[in-house]
Amino acid sequence: MSAPATQRTPRVVAARRLQRRRERDAERLFLAEGPQAVREAVGVPGAVQELFGTPDALDRHAGLVDAAQAGGAGVCPVTGQGLAALAETVNPQGLVAVCRYLDVPLADALAPPPRLVAVLAEVRDPGNAGTVLRTADAAGAGAVVFAGDAVDPYNGKCVRASAGSLFHLPVVRGAPAGATVAALRSAGLRVLAADPYGEADLDALADAGALAAPTAWLFGSEAHGLAPALAAAAHLRVRVPRYGRAESLNLAAAAAVCLYASARALRGAGPVPAPDREDRESQW
Amino acid sequence: MSAPATQRTPRVVAARRLQRRRERDAERLFLAEGPQAVREAVGVPGAVQELFGTPDALDRHAGLVDAAQAGGAGVCPVTGQGLAALAETVNPQGLVAVCRYLDVPLADALAPPPRLVAVLAEVRDPGNAGTVLRTADAAGAGAVVFAGDAVDPYNGKCVRASAGSLFHLPVVRGAPAGATVAALRSAGLRVLAADPYGEADLDALADAGALAAPTAWLFGSEAHGLAPALAAAAHLRVRVPRYGRAESLNLAAAAAVCLYASARALRGAGPVPAPDREDRESQW
Repeated sequence: MSAPATQRTPRVVAARRLQRRRERDAERLFLAEGPQAVREAVGVPGAVQELFGTPDALDRHAGLVDAAQAGGAGVCPVTGQGLAALAETVNPQGLVAVCRYLDVPLADALAPPPRLVAVLAEVRDPGNAGTVLRTADAAGAGAVVFAGDAVDPYNGKCVRASAGSLFHLPVVRGAPAGATVAALRSAGLRVLAADPYGEADLDALADAGALAAPTAWLFGSEAHGLAPALAAAAHLRVRVPRYGRAESLNLAAAAAVCLYASARALRGAGPVPAPDREDRESQW
Repeated sequence: MSAPATQRTPRVVAARRLQRRRERDAERLFLAEGPQAVREAVGVPGAVQELFGTPDALDRHAGLVDAAQAGGAGVCPVTGQGLAALAETVNPQGLVAVCRYLDVPLADALAPPPRLVAVLAEVRDPGNAGTVLRTADAAGAGAVVFAGDAVDPYNGKCVRASAGSLFHLPVVRGAPAGATVAALRSAGLRVLAADPYGEADLDALADAGALAAPTAWLFGSEAHGLAPALAAAAHLRVRVPRYGRAESLNLAAAAAVCLYASARALRGAGPVPAPDREDRESQW
């Protein structure tokens, strides 16, 4: 094995550029750091192009390295400083993978229509967006749509907050928000806008059995909520009830309550289908 | 009105020291920044000792200033640099209040026992802790306990993440975690530990009507979960069901799902009582 690459080695310099959105979009590649994200990435055939790691970390995670190589990824040992240049956290735990974009077109994500979809409309905070993606995965959603001017799902902070969920279910990126709602409606989903001032109460809907149909939830930015035209395009605007004095919930908490209310209602109506992995792989 | 104070004026220098926990504990004072937090602080009689603001912000929020003064607070105009020295965010919107500690002893928070309590045990991240405090408030909790080595509720990031909820309901600070569980059980609450590997499924408990009794939820740190002895001390260890492939939820999302499952069940059992404001005021 040759000497570990440093922060000045051309392949490290090239990979580091992927910290910027423009470079990611030009290459259709992004970075995933840490053993958890790398493990999930390796689980998606063809997702990992190259795996960087310190010699220690590559030893410690030999099974992951083998799986990455078996999947066609190159493996590149790097010095601690080389790794630090690639990582965006203080403690990257020795591994950073260069991954291929895995978003799918909206039409693909909706054929066949999943029973639970989360739409992030204009959500700008990458940590919030990644957390909602993780929660949607846990709640059994079949797709997550980053609509309109939402944050980039391949933003490093979003990838980290998703805790691997970016690799678990179909993600749609860049679909205009209005067209997304129209497509969801055409696909037969009930579109619910999460809105602190909505006309419907979430618990009342659950009590009435109104959440047992295939549903898409629209979530807006924490600072500004959903654009009025988008909220109006939903079938219903739904508020999470507030029993205390807090004016509102933060986005991640509201999304968790809404998505789990749907998941529970859909469980009563039968199993929530797993994401369709075949559709994802056809992208590569 | 004299010239606005600067970052070198002694009262600004003294207030700035409250950014450090040791100084807060010595003075039993903390900082709350931004109009929203200041508004909630002013709503608690006696909570605000002193209000700093830029001349512009004091003009813009004249009603708040009047209310603070009516409550006995001093008002001190500061320059933009003086305000920046007091604030921990880039955009503090012109106002920072020095507030008196408002935590209550555990025994006071449990007399009479609330029907919903959230316990943060060893939660170290102030943003997560503040978010759970906000969610507990929205879900109608009657108390939030920062137990054991949990983060300081008066940490600036926790105060900000709570979005004013720190001023809405009784907060307990520094109670040992084991003693907290014993006191909750003695007070007749059902103690449920949120645990991704718990033996009980949250939705199954809800379906069985098992959440309609007064309940205290224990939440551990996102990185390490609850200490095994503490989880064992609960009546039940409860997992949020995972319908997809995410290994777990983040703390704020898990807490939102658990607290709202209880709130919904308790609503069925009658109204969740509002926090007892009288008990809080007796602290001052």
